[in-house]
Amino acid sequence: MSPLTEIKVTYADMEKVFHNVLLKHSFNEPKAAMCAHIFADNSLDGVYTHGVNRFSRFIQMVVEKSVLPNRDPTKISSFGAMEQWNGNLGPGPSNAIFCTERALQFANQNGIGCVALNNTNHWMRGGTYGWKAAKKGYAFICWTNTIANMPAWGAKNSHLGNNPLIIAIPHNDEAIVLDMAISQFSFGAMEKFAMQQKALPVSGGYDEAGQMTTDPQKILETQRSLPIGYWKGSGLALLLDLLATILSGGKSTFEITEQKIESGVSQIFIAIKLSSLQNSSVINSVINNIIKDYHSAEPDNTSNNILYPGERVLQTRKENTENGIPVNMAVWNEILAL
Amino acid sequence: MSPLTEIKVTYADMEKVFHNVLLKHSFNEPKAAMCAHIFADNSLDGVYTHGVNRFSRFIQMVVEKSVLPNRDPTKISSFGAMEQWNGNLGPGPSNAIFCTERALQFANQNGIGCVALNNTNHWMRGGTYGWKAAKKGYAFICWTNTIANMPAWGAKNSHLGNNPLIIAIPHNDEAIVLDMAISQFSFGAMEKFAMQQKALPVSGGYDEAGQMTTDPQKILETQRSLPIGYWKGSGLALLLDLLATILSGGKSTFEITEQKIESGVSQIFIAIKLSSLQNSSVINSVINNIIKDYHSAEPDNTSNNILYPGERVLQTRKENTENGIPVNMAVWNEILAL
Repeated sequence: MSPLTEIKVTYADMEKVFHNVLLKHSFNEPKAAMCAHIFADNSLDGVYTHGVNRFSRFIQMVVEKSVLPNRDPTKISSFGAMEQWNGNLGPGPSNAIFCTERALQFANQNGIGCVALNNTNHWMRGGTYGWKAAKKGYAFICWTNTIANMPAWGAKNSHLGNNPLIIAIPHNDEAIVLDMAISQFSFGAMEKFAMQQKALPVSGGYDEAGQMTTDPQKILETQRSLPIGYWKGSGLALLLDLLATILSGGKSTFEITEQKIESGVSQIFIAIKLSSLQNSSVINSVINNIIKDYHSAEPDNTSNNILYPGERVLQTRKENTENGIPVNMAVWNEILAL
Repeated sequence: MSPLTEIKVTYADMEKVFHNVLLKHSFNEPKAAMCAHIFADNSLDGVYTHGVNRFSRFIQMVVEKSVLPNRDPTKISSFGAMEQWNGNLGPGPSNAIFCTERALQFANQNGIGCVALNNTNHWMRGGTYGWKAAKKGYAFICWTNTIANMPAWGAKNSHLGNNPLIIAIPHNDEAIVLDMAISQFSFGAMEKFAMQQKALPVSGGYDEAGQMTTDPQKILETQRSLPIGYWKGSGLALLLDLLATILSGGKSTFEITEQKIESGVSQIFIAIKLSSLQNSSVINSVINNIIKDYHSAEPDNTSNNILYPGERVLQTRKENTENGIPVNMAVWNEILAL
């Protein structure tokens, strides 16, 4: 069997393996359970880059003491519906779940709640927190800063993070979840295209000569990726970093970058309680009407389906629940050996 | 003198002319003063499309009774730091100023405040409200929905609005203000490129054959403009419409589009009080450090300067204050005749 062979792992098996590895690496029982659950969920939903394919690297961060397994957030300050917390370099996923729940509590009390978290770690898939909040009936916005990995518009070298932004709302018993990094393609996605010797569907960055290109290999060489919308995404990435940094009192992209390692990032979690709104009883039908109109658009002659954000996730989740989660054999063996 | 001749009008003269025209069209004194001020400010800042070049069309909306000059917002519901208001089809700029100030009051009380406004009109330049809030020391996020003017990714016809999003923070005595529609180019911008027989700097939409193009004329013919970041901006525009609609209990893009006229839109205003944060005393220097690092990036060999959002506005404001505001003679004559 070639190490590139794909196998299928059931959700239950995957969660159990993650759980045991986390216990072996000093996670306490509730933290291990929570993190195993998040990594397995992300894989089930098809976000393998922030699930099973990232798990070994997460454990490596624990071994290197960049992620401190049993740390919990502690409160820095509080004013009304706005709080600042210190993540104490604990696991990104458990810190982010904590702050999501805190923002929901705040929204219960004040209609809207905002939690700003500093000194935390990579939360893996930002959509995790959007799905969680939206399935409980809240509108939810969150974002994180990252290490510098994208040049500003007009610049050759990276001083911006791709700072993923998540916006989520409930939809029937599920959710509509936009989960997007501000770069057009992640370097992980470009590596995948390069390995398959495929061109990117649209320009993703620059070649050596400073020309925009759809050749992933050339962009991997220059490391000059493109923000979404060129100057627009460049501005958006900067503002998301500025807000995350000043609201949390934490590290900015450039300070994270100076450390060389992506640790101690800053994140924002904003929840709005929909059931307290005067129009709450009609919100679900209003959302369905908007989606119905959105789906009624005339499709172009490409293979791009007119999907709302999160729609493909539902399909993948169903497939992976029925057939098991596809995992690269080598990746799985590496995890089993941890 | 050709009607295309550009003249220079001082800020004071422009504001006075706007003020008088508004009074002539039944605006009461404070509403006329406020709207004249906003249209003149937008022009001074170089946003002519939502200043002097838009003024006649604004008056036309008043004549057609789509904008009702002396209406004020009325409260629909309130829960904690979250309120819903009805704009009563009043002037977009005065309604938006009202809700901006209301969000700041809420932020004073609760750290964060959110005002959702329905049944309002085009606010002209969204940055107006970002600059206002940020110069008073608040972080500020606002957005509006619009009539459908952009196809979703994979679609041929427009079911999405370009839903401008504004994010603003204080910066020294000024502000950093991202003010971006979710389309790569507005149709107004593409008309300008077409008139000058210039290509767009990047693809802005599709030609008749369904190919992406930088030819503005071809995009004006198909009306198939591109969202920023293709599928990403498509998702962002949808979520901004969904949030604006459900939080305000107002009209969605598709309902506005059914009316044929862009009136009765939905808007969101979120303010965060920075002076109540534990780290408030260092925020200004933190912002300056981030901007210093941002500016330190190595420029590429294009003419794109590495500017932060709002930086060019400051330059234009200075030039127009010193030299007068450039106005097309025909545009100005039309306003004088109103």
